[in-house]
Amino acid sequence: MTLGAQLLERLDEAACFSEPGAGVTRLFCSEQHRQVLELIADWMRRAGLEPELDASGNLVGRCDKARAGARTLIMGSHQDTVVEGGKYDGMLGVALPLLALERLKKDGIELDYGVEVVAFGDEEGTRFQSTLIGSRALAGTFDPASLEARDADGVSVGEALRAFGGDPEQIPSLARDPDSVLGFVEVHIEQGPVLERRDHALGVVTSLTGIERHRLTVAGKAGHAGTTPMPGRRDALVGAAEMIAEVDRILNATEDFVGVVGKLEVRPNAVNVIPAEVVFTLELRSPHAEVRRRGREDILAACRQLAQARELSLTVETTYEAEAVACADWLIEALGDACQRCDEPADLLFSGAGHDGLAMCDLTGIGMLFVRCTDGLSHHPDEAITAADGEAATRVLMQFLKDLTVKEQ
Amino acid sequence: MTLGAQLLERLDEAACFSEPGAGVTRLFCSEQHRQVLELIADWMRRAGLEPELDASGNLVGRCDKARAGARTLIMGSHQDTVVEGGKYDGMLGVALPLLALERLKKDGIELDYGVEVVAFGDEEGTRFQSTLIGSRALAGTFDPASLEARDADGVSVGEALRAFGGDPEQIPSLARDPDSVLGFVEVHIEQGPVLERRDHALGVVTSLTGIERHRLTVAGKAGHAGTTPMPGRRDALVGAAEMIAEVDRILNATEDFVGVVGKLEVRPNAVNVIPAEVVFTLELRSPHAEVRRRGREDILAACRQLAQARELSLTVETTYEAEAVACADWLIEALGDACQRCDEPADLLFSGAGHDGLAMCDLTGIGMLFVRCTDGLSHHPDEAITAADGEAATRVLMQFLKDLTVKEQ
Repeated sequence: MTLGAQLLERLDEAACFSEPGAGVTRLFCSEQHRQVLELIADWMRRAGLEPELDASGNLVGRCDKARAGARTLIMGSHQDTVVEGGKYDGMLGVALPLLALERLKKDGIELDYGVEVVAFGDEEGTRFQSTLIGSRALAGTFDPASLEARDADGVSVGEALRAFGGDPEQIPSLARDPDSVLGFVEVHIEQGPVLERRDHALGVVTSLTGIERHRLTVAGKAGHAGTTPMPGRRDALVGAAEMIAEVDRILNATEDFVGVVGKLEVRPNAVNVIPAEVVFTLELRSPHAEVRRRGREDILAACRQLAQARELSLTVETTYEAEAVACADWLIEALGDACQRCDEPADLLFSGAGHDGLAMCDLTGIGMLFVRCTDGLSHHPDEAITAADGEAATRVLMQFLKDLTVKEQ
Repeated sequence: MTLGAQLLERLDEAACFSEPGAGVTRLFCSEQHRQVLELIADWMRRAGLEPELDASGNLVGRCDKARAGARTLIMGSHQDTVVEGGKYDGMLGVALPLLALERLKKDGIELDYGVEVVAFGDEEGTRFQSTLIGSRALAGTFDPASLEARDADGVSVGEALRAFGGDPEQIPSLARDPDSVLGFVEVHIEQGPVLERRDHALGVVTSLTGIERHRLTVAGKAGHAGTTPMPGRRDALVGAAEMIAEVDRILNATEDFVGVVGKLEVRPNAVNVIPAEVVFTLELRSPHAEVRRRGREDILAACRQLAQARELSLTVETTYEAEAVACADWLIEALGDACQRCDEPADLLFSGAGHDGLAMCDLTGIGMLFVRCTDGLSHHPDEAITAADGEAATRVLMQFLKDLTVKEQ
């Protein structure tokens, strides 16, 4: 069986650990999380790593050198998924490096540095609002307040973690010594259509996009939709609609800038009542801090003008902001070289999504290898990669691992 | 105590029969409905009418002449409210004619025609989707299918009515003989700001608006909001936003035409996912059928163009349509004359809301007297009229009743 076919078989197997329903739904500290870790632990042992569940819910597999204190390359990705997600987002970055290490071991190749593969517990944040608990723990930026976040049933992160076998009190002790770490490498599906459009299997990531999220509340005045004359209405939904159209116009007119109004609620939301209030989210992303800042200012200024013209009030709360993170030059170069040596065109692109690297960058240099996904589709049951692309990515990672030396970084 | 003060006191008393919570919530065939009918029955007896619960849940009060078969003027309005509604919408049109008749009786004035006041069970349609069951019963347009509508607990209209003391099988027998009826007059709060803007207490209604409601579904394609480039997105919410802005533009540019997009839902409605589908309601009203038809065509053509430009699909379902209904000329004139004789400026205006008259017009000529309401506010706990305006309306109705003769219509 080819490496690519083996990889897809393993990912199919991991996908069985899912809540019932379409695609894969595997939440942090769930029964399915516990089950899939047994499978991953098995992969780790085959790759020559010793698996261990850490205090934050990560499954960490370490080779003997790493356990003996040698400088160590960390690889990995997250085990959790969105609701009705796919088989590859996250799990590819766990299964692929383990398969690559297993093959290198079979081939009798010994690496002169430590390796460690981590299956992070929680990157998507599907169950709790909090995300990146596992990668923040390793990076030493864990915030105890994130333990207080609760799921839909009122269970806190701390409670769920304890029941899962983790130990919230011990999380701060997971922080790694930066001097002991060589870097962090994550393999991930692209989750977008860029590689497919370029007809390339692989891409090397130059940076992870900066993200900001805002909650905009447009307030007007409710009224009977039949008896209130049109002039003088203060319809919050008409105002919000004008804002959304303007947001789209500005985003389309700006290079390296994407965004969305993804969530919107109307009150009172009745067929015959003038909308009194509309609350919507605005998410903006750019790999360039300045593009995002200027774009945000343009958008919010336009929204304020539109609100004023209709005598609506507008309040803007920023709910999330993460700066763009550049990948380490040496990892961009080393991953690019590995692609070249495997005759794979090395596209450079930025990641529009966040990843565990957003946390790991506080600990060490990060690098990411993207794999083309069918139709650019992700967070969907139909998420797919080909065996050939999986094979190419595995061979490139093996090449990267063989070429890497402790001195390189 | 003035008539106005007495009227407001009675309406305060009726408002006590409400579910707990802000304002008044009194649903069809509820415990509060049963309780308020005892109060209304008492008002009816004071006015010289004999109260009776009919098979459709209406409380009908008839004077001796009416019961003896004389031609009869029907007055009345509905007892039910929206959730957290006010004290006046509906109940004013029950309390006010009863108070007027009581005062006429006290003053020793005998009318040479029969009178009947009806407290209709269900006009708002809050509990069941079906509305106007009581007025349709009298008009002979009752549809037995409406008995199948169910409330949130799964109770059908038929079941609720039986438990309330009604008799679904007997509803068809409630249909009145048009020759026995003089006309139908309803007193109602305006539910809009027109009278207040003109600084007048009362208005005579010329017609009830025609109403149509549609459900528009805009379908695009979901996608990761960070990794999908802006060009080529098929964002259903951006398309819907452009449509809503255009709907508002057309409505504002057209005389005697009002409308609203009141309800809107986004799927999947997540902060970081491109909206795949938006469903929204479009309600359009005009007293002129032609204005409404042409306006609807303009609006839907514009929406289809906007959908096409973004490669979105658009489906339109019409969920409700009711033609405009003109008030009877002789009742418009007689109510106007009564206003004039009471030194009340007689504004003519159309009703942007539907009323029991929409059903009663199939039986007889209808007339409506509107009473100014504070801030044009209705369907709200703060719904209010002044004692002075209530007094004026009661005196105008007394004048109308005194001046009316059987030959008039």
